[in-house]
Amino acid sequence: MRILGVDPGLGITGYGVIEADKTPPSKELGGSIPVDKGQFKLLEAGIIKSSSRQALPERLSRLYKALSDIIRQYKPSSLILETLYSHYKHQMTAIAMAHARGVIALCAGNFARLNLVNYSAKRVKKAVTGNGNASKMQVARTVQGILKLKKLPDPYDVSDALALSLAHAYIMQGRK
Amino acid sequence: MRILGVDPGLGITGYGVIEADKTPPSKELGGSIPVDKGQFKLLEAGIIKSSSRQALPERLSRLYKALSDIIRQYKPSSLILETLYSHYKHQMTAIAMAHARGVIALCAGNFARLNLVNYSAKRVKKAVTGNGNASKMQVARTVQGILKLKKLPDPYDVSDALALSLAHAYIMQGRK
Repeated sequence: MRILGVDPGLGITGYGVIEADKTPPSKELGGSIPVDKGQFKLLEAGIIKSSSRQALPERLSRLYKALSDIIRQYKPSSLILETLYSHYKHQMTAIAMAHARGVIALCAGNFARLNLVNYSAKRVKKAVTGNGNASKMQVARTVQGILKLKKLPDPYDVSDALALSLAHAYIMQGRK
Repeated sequence: MRILGVDPGLGITGYGVIEADKTPPSKELGGSIPVDKGQFKLLEAGIIKSSSRQALPERLSRLYKALSDIIRQYKPSSLILETLYSHYKHQMTAIAMAHARGVIALCAGNFARLNLVNYSAKRVKKAVTGNGNASKMQVARTVQGILKLKKLPDPYDVSDALALSLAHAYIMQGRK
């Protein structure tokens, strides 16, 4: 199963694609990369960036195209986003994020076999680190350990996106 | 000059396309409808609706397609949105609205000759009614009068969208 976690932001959107489980992905899902049960393979992770000097349509268009390319390339079966909270400390940041989140959800809607799945931040942290209140650094270190990465994923937009992918894999495998 | 005002919402997005000024629109802009200086013609107005029973990608995809169709049909040169406030009373409503607003701005970005323009709610009300603090009903009645509509535009999502179009026309004509 191939999973794309996305941490939306108008300035920086983090993403991470993993292959989970040894179930071989079907050919429609872009070839087969064998992965042992409970093992995960990082396929690609990174950020999609835009500058506040660019106009809003341009920024969102860049995000839309970059994310669509990633989906076309890796053909994930699920796109994972964090559930919205009922209360954000920085309202304008949350509203800017929601512009990006809308465009990401629209992307997901364009690919018929791609499901959009939401988990709360707490559930993601709990599934990945065992602690629903883990810090971003603890999440990043745990993600690094699980995926056997040489370097700590950086920035947090990337580790948070990978944590979403991993949480979905754990939850789907019935391990959390 | 052809102007599309949009009042974004995840549940209901209002829109209104007007033709302003007597400058004949070029053929690329979809034929010529002569309008006297300072006169406006309503071309189309309405709402794009989605249900909270639908999944988010489906709702946004519906909005994206419907608005793209309107832009392709009427070929406006400007798409007008209200500027974001720094403070919303209902945070979750504002965040839902921002999902739709992101998709609308993305739509605008897909059409090379379409400019996205923002005005504050106060400036729109002032330009259209003369009073920056006009109520939604006062805005609707003024819009009805300017466009010589038989019926009051309804719901407010439509009159608010038309007020955005009219405000832009007034501001462009240097009258406000």
